[in-house]
Formats: sequence, structure tokens, C-alpha cells
Amino acid sequence: MPSNKSIIFKAIPDGYPVVGEHMKLVTKEIDIENFSLADGDILVKNHYLSLDPYMRGKMRHSDVKSYLPAYEIGQVLNGFGVAIVVKSNNKKYQVGDYYMGLIGWEEYSHITANVVSTEILTKEISKYKVPESHFLGLLGIPGMSAYVGLNKIGQPKKGETIFISAASGAVGQVVGQIAKIKGLRVIGSTSDDSKIKYLEEELKFDGAFNYKTCNTDEKLKELCPNGIDIYFDNVGGETLDIAINHLNNFARVVACGMISQYNAKEHYGVKNIIQVFAKRVLIQGFLVGDHFQEMESFHKEMVEWFKQGKLKYKEDIVEGIQNAPQALVNVLTGKKFGKMIVKIC
Amino acid sequence: MPSNKSIIFKAIPDGYPVVGEHMKLVTKEIDIENFSLADGDILVKNHYLSLDPYMRGKMRHSDVKSYLPAYEIGQVLNGFGVAIVVKSNNKKYQVGDYYMGLIGWEEYSHITANVVSTEILTKEISKYKVPESHFLGLLGIPGMSAYVGLNKIGQPKKGETIFISAASGAVGQVVGQIAKIKGLRVIGSTSDDSKIKYLEEELKFDGAFNYKTCNTDEKLKELCPNGIDIYFDNVGGETLDIAINHLNNFARVVACGMISQYNAKEHYGVKNIIQVFAKRVLIQGFLVGDHFQEMESFHKEMVEWFKQGKLKYKEDIVEGIQNAPQALVNVLTGKKFGKMIVKIC
Repeated sequence: MPSNKSIIFKAIPDGYPVVGEHMKLVTKEIDIENFSLADGDILVKNHYLSLDPYMRGKMRHSDVKSYLPAYEIGQVLNGFGVAIVVKSNNKKYQVGDYYMGLIGWEEYSHITANVVSTEILTKEISKYKVPESHFLGLLGIPGMSAYVGLNKIGQPKKGETIFISAASGAVGQVVGQIAKIKGLRVIGSTSDDSKIKYLEEELKFDGAFNYKTCNTDEKLKELCPNGIDIYFDNVGGETLDIAINHLNNFARVVACGMISQYNAKEHYGVKNIIQVFAKRVLIQGFLVGDHFQEMESFHKEMVEWFKQGKLKYKEDIVEGIQNAPQALVNVLTGKKFGKMIVKIC
Repeated sequence: MPSNKSIIFKAIPDGYPVVGEHMKLVTKEIDIENFSLADGDILVKNHYLSLDPYMRGKMRHSDVKSYLPAYEIGQVLNGFGVAIVVKSNNKKYQVGDYYMGLIGWEEYSHITANVVSTEILTKEISKYKVPESHFLGLLGIPGMSAYVGLNKIGQPKKGETIFISAASGAVGQVVGQIAKIKGLRVIGSTSDDSKIKYLEEELKFDGAFNYKTCNTDEKLKELCPNGIDIYFDNVGGETLDIAINHLNNFARVVACGMISQYNAKEHYGVKNIIQVFAKRVLIQGFLVGDHFQEMESFHKEMVEWFKQGKLKYKEDIVEGIQNAPQALVNVLTGKKFGKMIVKIC
């Protein structure tokens, strides 16, 4: 019988989660032939799993409310993934079909009828003829976050300047490339000198800097001499505070994520918020899940740009589900380069 | 010859300005008959002067940039006022006409041709048959700030809950009354128990509390049991931080002013900004000056409501220009009740 390695949620972390302590590998076997499926259920073999910062937010006490439910102690961790159906009791799915939606951090997942409804973009996977893993990044939730946030809130106009934090990350690299297509000056911050090279040479950013070794305030002064019109914020905290100081009148701040704050015991207080009214700044948060009805138009435009060679996408692919816990820690600490994906089989 | 008492800007304050030290009374005489006017200039006798929080922002070093120019040391302070033309070298103005625009903190002002262009709403003063002083409040810049901020950014919908800070102030009392007309639940914070009575009994707010003697967090929990959909922010700082904690998904924060921060040596850091993206909150600043082209539609709708008895407006009128400095300090410390106006003659 094939093995089914899985990662369970063991305990609630205080700061960063620790491999083995908060996330633990468990190995069982699975009897596919005799696996029992209720009406509407499917059994899938997992190919790729996406690891994302929001997962840290789910590692909390379940009585703390948030926009996503908490993981329960003892449960197999979950996230979005691409899988192949190996057994089906659902009319929509045949054995061999793609399933894309919520899967466990495991080799095989039993997807119950109610979870099947989290499914997204299944059909497009074969239709567009792009690599499977791209549906977890460039053409998945991170890419769509970039697209929706930049277009709806950022309202980019040719000739404007955009600053993107975590610019080589899953979302940031897409924001920057769309902004370049639209004729903006694009500046990004990142956590490593090799990423600067990627942003400037591969993605043609107009400038990038390492926020760990540079003074963000000085770098923004130097690289955004005409101020910032759009700040695409993936990190929050001090970077947000400094960026506000460089905003032009009528600037837009796209609040996409605040990764610097997810593991913080006390949240950073943003002092420059006082500049918001005099500069007529707009700060707006969004969740990509509110915009899934626009998935098709997003795919159409993005696949077109991708096929024209206007979009590149860096993935950091880790092999084996047993390596997923350390990979998530790397996502949270910035020790990765591009979109973090686990190749399960 | 008539006297022309005026208040000059004497020195830049560190915290709150001090009467006599930073603002000083000077008495001269004025020879109206022989007063020389260049082409386009007018000489006016001042009736009413508006005192507003933004004036503190102009009491700074001129090399600190802001949306309004700094006052120069030694100059007569200025602000919006209603006056009557007593001598004119401008075709548009006859002796006896109203002038409404930038005037000095003084009894007579020489309005140079370039300043005449700051003029607003002159014609409406006689057209609408409402008290002169209302054009500095209900129908002036504070009333228009309320109207524009609430409608354009707040996007009020019947049945929603709005929380207004500095709710009995020049702007807040108008926001609350328009929100009541539009069918919202209206909650306000203020600095004095007598103001609570005014808000609840005269203006029919659904609830009000004294932020100085109550715990804002507990009061918001009690008075906004369904959360806050619109926060109209006149104060910033800790109140903004606490209010964010009570915002509903898709809430709007109208950043109109941050009076708690104008005299602060270090700005308060807003920690709950991290809630913005998960709750899809919009925070937007605005300056009423960007919307003066909508003055006429604003006046039409407001005067209609006023004549129907749907709008009341509390003014705190101080007599004599010599009392203006203390009155401004009272504006900044909340020791006033309603819109602060100086009756000059």
C-alpha cells in the first residue's frame, strides 16, 4: 500500500513556528482501492502545494476571530494545491481530472463534498497550456492579488512611481511586471542582494534595494526623486511608516499584507498616518477571495502577457511534503526566492 | 480716526500656543479716506472671523512643507471671515458689498488683488437669507468638509452605524445631522457632559460619550453593538486606533483632521492599522479646498434642509478681536462648544 505522509498542526506558536514543535510529520498508509467516499467526495493525489504567509494567521486559538478559520490542533494542515483525482464519488470529477482547491499538507487527500466547493480554475489548467505550478503563483492567488490590488486600488497611470515591498515575493514580482507593462517607474525592496539583481536585470525594475542592509528612507529619497504615487504594501510596520513619508498628494496605498507583523508580539504603531489627510492619501485593504468572479478576465489578460514573454515568474520549489514545515518558516522569515511551492509528487 | 486692533504672529510655539507669547495684540489707527489701494485691491471692515484647528499647523517654521503656507513671524494672523467692503479699487466690488475670504485677525483688512481671489460664496450670503456667521460654519468650510467627507468617502447607507469624534465640533455636528437625515445610527464622542446632552437631545444622536471620563473601547462596544461602518475622524491618535478595532468589514474611515496630534511633540503610532487589509477597510484623507467647484450644490441641499428645520448649528461666538488668541487656544484644547467664531464688529 502507498504511504501517505502528512504534516499535522501540533501546537500554537508564540512567534515564528518551529518545525517538529508546532508542525509535525506523521506517516500512515493509504488503501486507495478500499477507500470509502461519501456522496460528492473525491480522493486526490497531490502534485503541488502553495505555502503562503496567511497560514501563520491560521495558527492561532480558534476563539480569536479572523477572516480565515484557525487550524485545529491535531489536524492535517491545509492550503491551496494542484492534484489529480484518483477516486471519485462526484459526478463532476473523473479519475485523472485535475482538482485545484484546498488540499492537505499530505500525499493523498480525501476531499469531502463541502470542501470540493473551494475548487477554483480547474478547467483552465489544461486550457491555457502553462506549467501546473503557475496556477499556484503567477496565475493563482498571488498573481490575482497583484492584479486586483494594483488595478482596483492602485489605479496606476503611465509615468507614475510605484514602490513595492517584498518585491521579489509571490505577489510583488507580479505587481512590478504589470506596473512596467503599464508604463510606471517601479522600485522594490527585498531582503537579499541576489534578489536585487533578479528584479533589476530579469524583471527590469527601475531600482531595488535590500532593506536589511540599506536605510529605507534614504533609498526611497534616492530612487523615488519625484515621490511615490502607489505603495503596494506586503509588509506593513516600519516600511509602511517610512513609505507614507514619501507619498505624493493623492497617492494610493494598496494594503495587501503585513508580513512583518504576523509574528510580532506587539504591533508596530504607524506614526505617519497623520499625513493621510493633508496629502489626500487613500489606504485600502482587500482580500482576493472577494474578486474570484473576475478570475477568467484575469487569466485571459495574464496568459496573453505571459505568452508574449512580458511576464516571468520565479518559483522556489521544495521537493517532498516532509520539507514543507521548514519551507513555511522560510516564507515567514524571507529566506526564499520567489513563490514558495512544495512539489509533493 | 478709527482704531485697527490686530493680532500678530509673534513666535513659533512648541506645544500649544500661548497668548501674548506666540500671538500678540497690536493697536494702530487707520485712515480710511486716504488709504491707498493698488489696482484690484479692496479695503474691508471685518464682521466675523472663523477660528480653526488648521491654524496651529501654520504656526511652524516656513521650511517645513505642508498643504498650507506657514505664518511669517511678525505678520498679522489670517483666516476666513465675512466682511463688508469700505473702499474699493476692484470692479467686482462696490462699497457695501460682502466679501468672504481670507482676512486678517484685525478690525480692517487691506485685501490685495491676489488675495481677493481666495474669495468664496460672496453672492450666496444675501441670496439664501441665513445669518452671516453661518457662512463660516454650517454653510462654510466646516459644513462643506462634513458634507464632502461623509458623502464622497463615507458613502453612507441607510441602517449603517457611524462613529464621529469631536462630534459637537464645527464639522462633527454637521456630519451627525446629515447622517441622521440619511438614516444611519449615529454615535459621537465629545469632551464634556453638557455636549453629550446637546448631541443626544438637540441633534438626536443615538448615543454620545465623554472620551475624557469614559473608556472609548468599552463605550464603542456598548453603543455600536453591530460594529462601525463609517468612522469620521477629526482627532486621530489613540481614538483612531481604538475605532479601527471596532470597524466592520468594508468600513470607511474619513480622515478629516487629527487635532489630537497637532500639538504633540511625537505622533501617536497607530497599531491597529494591521486590521485594514483583512477587514478590507478604506482610509482616505481629503481637503475641502479640492471640492470648491461643488459649493453651489452643497449650498442648495444644505439650505433646503436648514429651512426645513433638519439642521441646527451651535456656534461659540467670542466678541472682540482681542479675545481671538485665547479662543484659538480653546479650539485646540476642546474648551469650546460648537463652531468657534470671533465677532469683530
